[in-house]
Amino acid sequence: MKPGDRIKVFAPATVANVACGYDILGFAIDFPGDELIMELTEKKGVEIVDIVGDGGVLPRNPLTNSASVAIMDYLNYIHADFGCKIWIKKMMPSGSGLGSSAASAVAGVYAVNMLCNEKLTKHEMLPFLLNSEKVACGSAIADNVAASLFGGFILVRSYEPLDVINIPVPEDLWCAVINPQVIVLTREAREILPKEISITKSVRQGANVGGLIVGLLRGDYDLIGRSLIDYIAEPYRSKLIPGFYDMKEAAIHAGALGSSISGSGPSVFALCKGEETARKAGNAMKAVMDKMGIEANVYVSKVNPTGPKALPFMEE
Amino acid sequence: MKPGDRIKVFAPATVANVACGYDILGFAIDFPGDELIMELTEKKGVEIVDIVGDGGVLPRNPLTNSASVAIMDYLNYIHADFGCKIWIKKMMPSGSGLGSSAASAVAGVYAVNMLCNEKLTKHEMLPFLLNSEKVACGSAIADNVAASLFGGFILVRSYEPLDVINIPVPEDLWCAVINPQVIVLTREAREILPKEISITKSVRQGANVGGLIVGLLRGDYDLIGRSLIDYIAEPYRSKLIPGFYDMKEAAIHAGALGSSISGSGPSVFALCKGEETARKAGNAMKAVMDKMGIEANVYVSKVNPTGPKALPFMEE
Repeated sequence: MKPGDRIKVFAPATVANVACGYDILGFAIDFPGDELIMELTEKKGVEIVDIVGDGGVLPRNPLTNSASVAIMDYLNYIHADFGCKIWIKKMMPSGSGLGSSAASAVAGVYAVNMLCNEKLTKHEMLPFLLNSEKVACGSAIADNVAASLFGGFILVRSYEPLDVINIPVPEDLWCAVINPQVIVLTREAREILPKEISITKSVRQGANVGGLIVGLLRGDYDLIGRSLIDYIAEPYRSKLIPGFYDMKEAAIHAGALGSSISGSGPSVFALCKGEETARKAGNAMKAVMDKMGIEANVYVSKVNPTGPKALPFMEE
Repeated sequence: MKPGDRIKVFAPATVANVACGYDILGFAIDFPGDELIMELTEKKGVEIVDIVGDGGVLPRNPLTNSASVAIMDYLNYIHADFGCKIWIKKMMPSGSGLGSSAASAVAGVYAVNMLCNEKLTKHEMLPFLLNSEKVACGSAIADNVAASLFGGFILVRSYEPLDVINIPVPEDLWCAVINPQVIVLTREAREILPKEISITKSVRQGANVGGLIVGLLRGDYDLIGRSLIDYIAEPYRSKLIPGFYDMKEAAIHAGALGSSISGSGPSVFALCKGEETARKAGNAMKAVMDKMGIEANVYVSKVNPTGPKALPFMEE
C-alpha cells in the first residue's frame, strides 16, 4: 500500500428486520447499492472529495459522514501513517429503509481493507461499522452493516459480546423492493412501537425466526414464506406507510413468498422464488402506489450472497 | 394386521423449552423413556391391562390415560374394526418435566401404527398426540410429543395451522438431566410467568432461537452453548427449583455447553459435547443436590436422533 493506490468498490443495499427478525435479521440485495472510489494519500485522515446522487443532503464533513467515520476508525486501528481521499456515488435514496448509511460505510471499510492487503477479517471490521451507524443514525444497530458486509442473511445473536452469524441463502431467492416517496423518520418509527409484548406473541415471533432460518439453510422456500410474520413492528409501523397492506397483499397474490417493511420503512420488500415472480411482485406493489398517486421506485434483484466487491475503472 | 399381532416399543423422554425455546423447542433423549406392549384384539376399544413403574398414580381408565386416548383417536381415524390391549412400563417419573405423558402416548400411536403397516406418517399422527396432551395435561402443547415422536430437536413454528419442523442434531450432542425429588405443579409453573415481556428481551430471545438452530444445523457446539439463554421462563421458574442456579453453574463449570429447566421443571438439563462431559455435568449437578439433602436421579444419554423404536420380546 502506497499513496496513489486506488480502488473502486460497490456495497449492497440491505433489508433489515425481515418480518419476524425485528432488530436481529438482515439481508443484502444485488441492487441498489453504493459505489465508492478510494485513493491513498500521504496526508493522514480522510478527505471526502465528492458525493454524487444524494441531492446534496449527506454530510461532507468527514467527522459525520458514515463512510469516512468507519474508514477513520480502520486507519486508526491499524496505526496507519497515511490517509485517503474518497468519492461516493449514491445509487439509492437516504431514509428509505434500505441501509443507505450502512452501504456507504461498508464500501469505505471494504475499500481501505483491500488497499491494505486484506489486513482485517470482516468480523474484525464490524465494530468500526457499528460506530459509523451510531454517528449516522444515532444507534449502533448491526443488522444493515453486517448484511451489507457479509452478504446473504445475517443474524445478530448478541451485542454484548457482538455475535453476528452469517447464513447462506438458497440459489433462487430473489427480492422485490418498493421505495414509495413518502417520509418515515426512523425516530418516529421507533417511538410508535410499544415497549412490551405479550409472551404469546413473543413466543410466536421467535418460532418464526427459527422457521425462517431452517428454511434458508434447507432451501425450503415454502417454509421461508410461512415464517415471514411479524408481531412486533409491522402492526404499528404499517400505519406510517400509505397502502402498506394493499402492497403486501398484491405481492403475495403475485406469488411472493412473503412481504413486510424494509428496516423502519417506508420501503417494502417481497421475497420470492425466482426472478419472474419477483418482477411480478414488484409490478403489483407499484400498481398499488400508482393507483394511490404515490411515486415509487421498484428494485428487483437477487439476494446478494457475498457482500461488497471491487469494480473495474470502466470509465477510463 | 389381525387379532393376536403384537409389538413392544420404546418412546423417549423429552426436554421441552430448551432455554431460549420456551413453548417452541424440544428434544428427545435416549434414556429414560417408556415401554409399551400392544396386542391387537377382535374387541374394539383400548384395554389397559397393566401399568408398572408409576407407583399407581397414572389413570387406568382408557378415557383419561394419555396412551389409550391417543391410540383410540388413531383407531377411530382409520375406522378400525378391531381394538387392542396395552401394557405400559413407566421408566421415568411423572410430573418431572421430562414429558412423561407424551412418551406413553407416542409409544402407543407408534405401536398401533407399526401393527397397521405404518398406515400413517408421523406428521399425520401428531393431532392425536396433541389431543392426548390436552387430556393428560390440560393443554394441547406439541413440544414434548413432537420431540418424542420425531427424535432430534423439533421446532413448533405454528399451531394454527400446526407446523412442526424437525431439526437433526450433531453426532456428539449429549445431555445430562437431573430430576430432583421436589414437586413443581405445571399450573403453578405457568402462573408464575408474567403475561408480557419487554420488546428488548423478546428480541434477544428470538435471536437465541436463531443462534441455537444455526448451531444445531452446522454442528457448531460453541454457538449452541452461547444461544442457551432464556429471558422468558427461567428467571421466574428457577424460584420453584431449590438450588437451580447452583446446579446450572456447576454443570457449566464441568464443561456443559449450557443448562436450563426441562419443561416446567423440576428437572434441569445440561447439553454437552460428548459423553464424558455429560457425565461430569450430571455428577456436578447431583453434588449440589446431595449437599442440599435433596434426593435426585441423574440421567445421562445422547440426544435421541430418531424417536420411538420397536424392541425385541427379550423376556420370552
